[in-house]
Amino acid sequence: MAEFLKLVSPSEALALLMHSLPECVPENELVDTVHAAGRVIAEDVRAPQSLPSFSRSSMDGFAVRASDTFGVSESLPGYLTIKGEVPMGAGPAFSIESGQAAIIHTGGMLPQNTDAVVMLEQTERSRKDEIAILRAVAPGENAILEGEDVKEGQIVIRRGTQIRSAEVGGCMALGITQLRVANRPKVGILSSGDEVIPPGQVPVLGQVRDVNSYSLAILVSEAGGEPVLYGIVKDKLELMKDQAAKVLSECQSMVITAGSSTSARDMTAEVIDSLGAPGVLVHGVNVRPGKPTILAVCNGKAVIGLPGNPVSAIVIAGLFVVPLIKRLLGAKANHPNKSCLARLIINIPSQAGREDWIPVKLIHSTNRIDELDSWLADPIFAKSNLIFSLAAADGLVRIPADVTGLESGEQVQVFLF
Amino acid sequence: MAEFLKLVSPSEALALLMHSLPECVPENELVDTVHAAGRVIAEDVRAPQSLPSFSRSSMDGFAVRASDTFGVSESLPGYLTIKGEVPMGAGPAFSIESGQAAIIHTGGMLPQNTDAVVMLEQTERSRKDEIAILRAVAPGENAILEGEDVKEGQIVIRRGTQIRSAEVGGCMALGITQLRVANRPKVGILSSGDEVIPPGQVPVLGQVRDVNSYSLAILVSEAGGEPVLYGIVKDKLELMKDQAAKVLSECQSMVITAGSSTSARDMTAEVIDSLGAPGVLVHGVNVRPGKPTILAVCNGKAVIGLPGNPVSAIVIAGLFVVPLIKRLLGAKANHPNKSCLARLIINIPSQAGREDWIPVKLIHSTNRIDELDSWLADPIFAKSNLIFSLAAADGLVRIPADVTGLESGEQVQVFLF
Repeated sequence: MAEFLKLVSPSEALALLMHSLPECVPENELVDTVHAAGRVIAEDVRAPQSLPSFSRSSMDGFAVRASDTFGVSESLPGYLTIKGEVPMGAGPAFSIESGQAAIIHTGGMLPQNTDAVVMLEQTERSRKDEIAILRAVAPGENAILEGEDVKEGQIVIRRGTQIRSAEVGGCMALGITQLRVANRPKVGILSSGDEVIPPGQVPVLGQVRDVNSYSLAILVSEAGGEPVLYGIVKDKLELMKDQAAKVLSECQSMVITAGSSTSARDMTAEVIDSLGAPGVLVHGVNVRPGKPTILAVCNGKAVIGLPGNPVSAIVIAGLFVVPLIKRLLGAKANHPNKSCLARLIINIPSQAGREDWIPVKLIHSTNRIDELDSWLADPIFAKSNLIFSLAAADGLVRIPADVTGLESGEQVQVFLF
Repeated sequence: MAEFLKLVSPSEALALLMHSLPECVPENELVDTVHAAGRVIAEDVRAPQSLPSFSRSSMDGFAVRASDTFGVSESLPGYLTIKGEVPMGAGPAFSIESGQAAIIHTGGMLPQNTDAVVMLEQTERSRKDEIAILRAVAPGENAILEGEDVKEGQIVIRRGTQIRSAEVGGCMALGITQLRVANRPKVGILSSGDEVIPPGQVPVLGQVRDVNSYSLAILVSEAGGEPVLYGIVKDKLELMKDQAAKVLSECQSMVITAGSSTSARDMTAEVIDSLGAPGVLVHGVNVRPGKPTILAVCNGKAVIGLPGNPVSAIVIAGLFVVPLIKRLLGAKANHPNKSCLARLIINIPSQAGREDWIPVKLIHSTNRIDELDSWLADPIFAKSNLIFSLAAADGLVRIPADVTGLESGEQVQVFLF
């Protein structure tokens, strides 16, 4: 029961792990931009050209010299001669002198000497080749000027950014069809337990199928890592040491799910300590579920010992394995957890001095899916080793260590997993 | 300008689209459970066995008949003879009579005739083969009884559920190594515009590269659809009609990004109306950015005309294309948007009577990444056609139609994209 004396809070434990890991620059590879979504940019991306590469209209109307419109109004219109129409997808074949204007469509290129667009609605055709301008425009109005989005040479995506639709779109606009991204860090996953068998086998009495290797693989993959499954190792010290050393030599980090008994958990700590200095940093975290968590760094690589309980393994992987992978990817630390807001429909009691994570089911309270507070959270109170109690949940609510529970009607943040 | 008269709110527009689509059961396929994450279950999954399949201990201690402990206390312990030790991964070779107990580890199988476990900490070894029980236990205490997680034949995952780590783990526990999931609906993506060229080409004056096909493909893919890119079609009515008809015949739904001028947008509406009844349902949504959005159903298939403006296209795809794909997958409608809470650091003005979506950058305000309100939201005010203004944002804040803005310090929900 030694670990009970050394319990640290989840945030302290994470900070300790992160500070004990050496700084590292992840290996990287070149991928097609169309396949880069979700990947993390390995080096700053600079614009090879300005964007837009020419000044464009953002309205349907007339391209003008803004100065020609100064002082005009509905009661005192200004009159301009129509020089021609700007074609789409080509530069206009004419330029504009003072007193002239050109018909232009949204996206069309501003003719030479023009610097603004008067919206169609703010003009009136006075003659066949003349319009009345009813409102003055400032230079740049109703237009996107050359380089207004991005200037040539400017950094457009910083190292550590996770690629989304907007970055893919932006790169395409610049003709950047390949991107250098961080390699997915290999995370070795090792399950232990004399009673654990692969899912494809039929258990005899006393045996259970391996759950954690597979649920953890999904979480590792979603966080941007490459899960490598090493199967199940028996609870024998030398076997475990050998297998763990092999995993760590082949991967950037390792997750072991410990056998569930106290002796098996202590053996996991011993195995981890054998893998290199400094070894175990944290043995026991002040959180429920997941108290028997082990965090370690061995020869510069992170090793996380997760509880064998399948619910704890998923909750704790969210707290430690996901941030670890982000760190290995060189991803910006500045990244919010995905969550939604909800109102509790019953009280949740909790023991003060310990952080609790409670699964909740979300219930829709309005027809508006985009509205704040449109969700109700119904806590699922079940023994935390029942995997289908977690499958029934939409997310987890955190109860901080310094409160003795949350009250019905309280607004809570539900972390979606 | 006809569409200005018919503007409907985003939620009304979405409801209209959904109600006009026929009920459909998506095609489905069998996939390995390990590759099923993110997919949507096509038919209810039932447990082929109970879980756990035998009663297990959830603590290290002694398996007992609960009735043997009734009335005991620290001052009046009960004494039980130790019959043996339960091995891990096998059934115990003995059963327990009244007055007896067995050493058991977490995960070990309860011997016949036992129904509870006394934790090690609540016992004292009185003799070599005898323990003193210091606290009474109720039947089922410190144990997980056979079928307590799931009973044989029970529905464990309902049709329409999106598979996450918990479902994968649960299936593995039951030996369910394959799952029947909805096929990814094919969403055809067609860009239009005389000025638009593929990203790999170098634009001449007046041309711009295609952004929307690629940013939309990412969003379609993330929502669970299969994007099919049909390239760029010129703004010619017959060309567009032919190409759009081909797309819709090959896909379950279609997204067209319209040319950006008013005439091109009106042509897009005409093209969509030619594809089948009832045709265009909504032409113009009361939202910014994205007012020129077109929603249609043609011969039972949804067609969405998105604005050509790349920021609008992404925002509007989030409002309409993502829910459409969820519907085509048969996914449960009950699904929260991924978001986080933040406090605005400056005022955002907004026009009453119109819903606005404003890109914001998130700034970390505390060291605790898991804390409510730990984020500040800094609005990005930029012309909405600048794609890199969206790339600089972490999410979007919705300003409802019935307010004239949000105030500095106000708590807002930031929708992550």
